[in-house]
Amino acid sequence: MTFHDLHRPGDPLLLPNAWDYGSAALLASRGYPAIGTTSLGVAAVHGKPDAAAATRAETLDLVLLVKDLPAYLTVDVENGFSDDPAAVADLVDLLAGLGVAGINLEDGRADGTLRPVGEQTRILEAVAGRGVFVNARTDTHWLGTGESATERIRAYADAGADGVFVPGVADLAEIAELARATALPLNVLYSHTHSVEELAGAGVARVSTGSLLYRAALQGALAVLEKDAAMPTYAEIVGLLPEPR
Amino acid sequence: MTFHDLHRPGDPLLLPNAWDYGSAALLASRGYPAIGTTSLGVAAVHGKPDAAAATRAETLDLVLLVKDLPAYLTVDVENGFSDDPAAVADLVDLLAGLGVAGINLEDGRADGTLRPVGEQTRILEAVAGRGVFVNARTDTHWLGTGESATERIRAYADAGADGVFVPGVADLAEIAELARATALPLNVLYSHTHSVEELAGAGVARVSTGSLLYRAALQGALAVLEKDAAMPTYAEIVGLLPEPR
Repeated sequence: MTFHDLHRPGDPLLLPNAWDYGSAALLASRGYPAIGTTSLGVAAVHGKPDAAAATRAETLDLVLLVKDLPAYLTVDVENGFSDDPAAVADLVDLLAGLGVAGINLEDGRADGTLRPVGEQTRILEAVAGRGVFVNARTDTHWLGTGESATERIRAYADAGADGVFVPGVADLAEIAELARATALPLNVLYSHTHSVEELAGAGVARVSTGSLLYRAALQGALAVLEKDAAMPTYAEIVGLLPEPR
Repeated sequence: MTFHDLHRPGDPLLLPNAWDYGSAALLASRGYPAIGTTSLGVAAVHGKPDAAAATRAETLDLVLLVKDLPAYLTVDVENGFSDDPAAVADLVDLLAGLGVAGINLEDGRADGTLRPVGEQTRILEAVAGRGVFVNARTDTHWLGTGESATERIRAYADAGADGVFVPGVADLAEIAELARATALPLNVLYSHTHSVEELAGAGVARVSTGSLLYRAALQGALAVLEKDAAMPTYAEIVGLLPEPR
């Protein structure tokens, strides 16, 4: 079964996201067929900002460490670590050569805006067909920009994406509408609000955990020492990191 | 209050051990006055063996990342990453220059034996008095060698150690006996068997978590996806790592 085959609308791939060798190796040893990376986790491990091409080297280091684990690997490359389509294509070739099965490529920018759709589709066109599953993420909901996710994912499908990812959609009916709006596998974030079965029923093909496992890991550590330790929020962890330059 | 002052027999320093920038920064933000590192955690983050000088560079990298956090930092340098007293002293000078408050220096070797007491005391003599709190760890119990912990910690005190650490002692009466056997602050591992209060009552001056928080972190991550996920054991994590060469 290829990595692509694991994306089944209505019977989604549950994709845990790792942040270091230990988390990836443990997840692979527990039988998860595919593992993603989390850019927040990678940034936090190395004390870098979670944005703005800051973790390109650390992301590649993690790929080198985990590429031979017995699981498909899909890599969070943020917004490609570059605005230059050729540079992003070179990165994808490098990852493909290392045996990486997929990438996540997002349109969100460090300043909270979306990359213009034309720029993002030019990057997607440049990276499509290079042997890795290109999961095109739109941050319309994540960043709350008010732009249409449907228009974005349709444009990304036309540009050659293999799957689409809309993090931050909480409403199950809206998720089902997005799944119907594209022929590509729809990826959403793991949620404490909806079960994986409910997301499956909405037509989702992949459920990924984003930064959740890294945050749950920190909570697990704190809970040894502090009864009822809360899970650190995304914002709390970002607040521990240096500011993007 | 100096790092040394935090070691109070009967009112021990609770020392959490971090493995990456994120865990250290979070612990510092929660007000822990001092943070240790865990060599197992550092090894697991980077996919290195937990032994045999394999993580010297990664340990120094972590020090550089976290040295400016608002907490005392004490660094697990395993067995000094060298058998040469001068080389270990150079490492301690480097760490002191970076503002590190303490080190842990153990006598256990990768092959499961203890470094001969004369060799270990020569290393301790070389690193004492260089501006860092030297916590001399003996692995008599940890490795189950059957040798006397009391003789080891007395020799290490005579060699200039600032504190002594005996991991793997489960019996509270034996812990109390060790505390009485030395004038130095006694460090034991955090335990699910005895409360910190019980350890305090036994005369302990420092309770550190070793690899526990890293293992609890991985459990916390797994528990998102798997109800009742067990905490990975030390041996399970070592089993994920490459063999020492």
